[in-house]
Amino acid sequence: MTQLRVPGPTPCPPEVLKAMGWQMVNHRGPEFHELLTEVTENLKKVFQTKSDLLLLTGSGTGGLEAAVVNTMSPGDKVLSVSMGVFGDRWATIAKTFGADVVNLKVEWGKAADPDTVKKAINDNPAVKAVMVTHNETSTGVTNDMKAISKVVKDAGKLLIVDSISGMGSLPLAVDELGVDVAVSGSQKGWMVPPGMAMVSVSTAGWKARETAKMPNFYWDFVRAKKNYDEKKENPWTPAISIVYAFKVALQMMLKEGIDNIFERHARIGNLTREGIKKLGLPLFADPAHASNTVTSVGIPEGLDGKKFRQICREKYKVVLAGGQQTLDGKIFRIGHLGLINEKDVKEILSAIEKALPEAGFKK
Amino acid sequence: MTQLRVPGPTPCPPEVLKAMGWQMVNHRGPEFHELLTEVTENLKKVFQTKSDLLLLTGSGTGGLEAAVVNTMSPGDKVLSVSMGVFGDRWATIAKTFGADVVNLKVEWGKAADPDTVKKAINDNPAVKAVMVTHNETSTGVTNDMKAISKVVKDAGKLLIVDSISGMGSLPLAVDELGVDVAVSGSQKGWMVPPGMAMVSVSTAGWKARETAKMPNFYWDFVRAKKNYDEKKENPWTPAISIVYAFKVALQMMLKEGIDNIFERHARIGNLTREGIKKLGLPLFADPAHASNTVTSVGIPEGLDGKKFRQICREKYKVVLAGGQQTLDGKIFRIGHLGLINEKDVKEILSAIEKALPEAGFKK
Repeated sequence: MTQLRVPGPTPCPPEVLKAMGWQMVNHRGPEFHELLTEVTENLKKVFQTKSDLLLLTGSGTGGLEAAVVNTMSPGDKVLSVSMGVFGDRWATIAKTFGADVVNLKVEWGKAADPDTVKKAINDNPAVKAVMVTHNETSTGVTNDMKAISKVVKDAGKLLIVDSISGMGSLPLAVDELGVDVAVSGSQKGWMVPPGMAMVSVSTAGWKARETAKMPNFYWDFVRAKKNYDEKKENPWTPAISIVYAFKVALQMMLKEGIDNIFERHARIGNLTREGIKKLGLPLFADPAHASNTVTSVGIPEGLDGKKFRQICREKYKVVLAGGQQTLDGKIFRIGHLGLINEKDVKEILSAIEKALPEAGFKK
Repeated sequence: MTQLRVPGPTPCPPEVLKAMGWQMVNHRGPEFHELLTEVTENLKKVFQTKSDLLLLTGSGTGGLEAAVVNTMSPGDKVLSVSMGVFGDRWATIAKTFGADVVNLKVEWGKAADPDTVKKAINDNPAVKAVMVTHNETSTGVTNDMKAISKVVKDAGKLLIVDSISGMGSLPLAVDELGVDVAVSGSQKGWMVPPGMAMVSVSTAGWKARETAKMPNFYWDFVRAKKNYDEKKENPWTPAISIVYAFKVALQMMLKEGIDNIFERHARIGNLTREGIKKLGLPLFADPAHASNTVTSVGIPEGLDGKKFRQICREKYKVVLAGGQQTLDGKIFRIGHLGLINEKDVKEILSAIEKALPEAGFKK
């Protein structure tokens, strides 16, 4: 069977795929009310929040746009802490809707330094909100969210976090850390197909919503909260099948236990990095901040990266991701989040080992 | 088996549900490129367009928002021709993003009169675009799109059509009629679960896009077209399972033939209305413009509408929709689009006939 090991979409368990095939129900009827309540409450457990959790039909990027337009007004100064493609994309979204974005760009492959974030806030006291990527999928780097959250909250700023490829796989305790808006996406560690974004909103997040003037309708958090609180519904017709899949996947996740899931991802991440090093390939990410959901691997001289991934895919049935933008041709990426165990990692590493010499690599 | 007869989500055929359960693939890989190409080309056949057809992950309302923000600038004067809840919602979206909306409100239950639309355009020569609902789900009314299109195109205005619950079930030849942006949603006549909106964009639509200044990122038509044209991809991770479902559903639809599908819906619509009249219930929509995808039925004195629908659902396994907003308690609605045949209509009518006296109705 093919090993789909891009950093999302991730493979889904058979039980989840079965749920995807359940027949439609009325999204304004009692079965759906019960379903949405269960899924929302279980998502809150993984987000580790007692605040509101909203399910939005759209991709993760939609969730990032929603986080921006619900908390900011045109002209608001915001600090974007970006360490890769997805951080940059998010800053572009904020700019597009009129925010005055202060860019703190971290060298790709490195994590953000909390002291540098602190300095950027001090240098720009008018900053209202700080946008931080928890886990940067394009570089395979995880930020130290405990330290960064502390800096942002000590300064009394709104903290908005892209945890699309982190939440559910890596620890991010929303309430404990004071994250005001956290965004995730169904197709990552959740073992669910793409189609929904999930966002948590804190009390301070709702306070920001009250004065936020960026135009929004579809992504409106107020309409989403009102429909959930009053009727256990979404304001617009939701991706019902994705909610079915969440029901099953969340039951599996809570049965495993979120701390066990975090530990498994840590073990898997470590195993992957050790295996890559043994094969003689360079790790791209700073070892102190290497992500446990995606490993970025440098493409050494002699290796044809495109051919290598093609051989992995076609001959050894392991699908890997390439690099994005300036990292195209410079790295490849292994997604190891959600449905993955030690045996999978061995299979992936074995496929890579066999494909490497066939694509020109000499150790 | 339960008959889900709300006007979307609609029941899915077993083949489509099976496709929903297919395992994930890389959305930036060759299998997906082939899949998205087939689905896009087949959607164009149903839309009857040779222009661009974009698949957006989101609900129909997301597609309506996309149509607005890609064609208008704040301050632009636009004419909203609304005949119900969804027309009003669309006008609100345009207003939210800064359009100067001229409201042409048609009495609920009636269709828009092409001459009145013409007069409204003449009275407001600065109008840049006209927003028209093809099939108003909340009232069960279908507009005469041939006549209205002619009026709008004769005046040289941009024509933007909400055909969420029409396209694929009712004829709307996009190129022939000169529709500049047409919006549909996966969960209607397409027999696919909710999660994607489909929009067609004409040459004049692209021309409008060039000068449109409403802020947008996630819904950006330019990014969607560029990613499709260059790579057969979506810019953001799409709802892959919905695209799987479309593959199967569109093959079924094209095998039946779109003219046959339109005829079947006309027959089913007629059969439903005749059956309702025989039961002694009043039809809400103007008979000259009654929709062939949804029938709205007046709730006569003595009938407890809520109890009636509950009995239909719990005892007779037929799920019907209520009225929305001011029509709450005044009508109920029968969805009859997508996967439906004459036998289904008989079952639905039989359930209604049995439930009526149990909910207080005396003929």
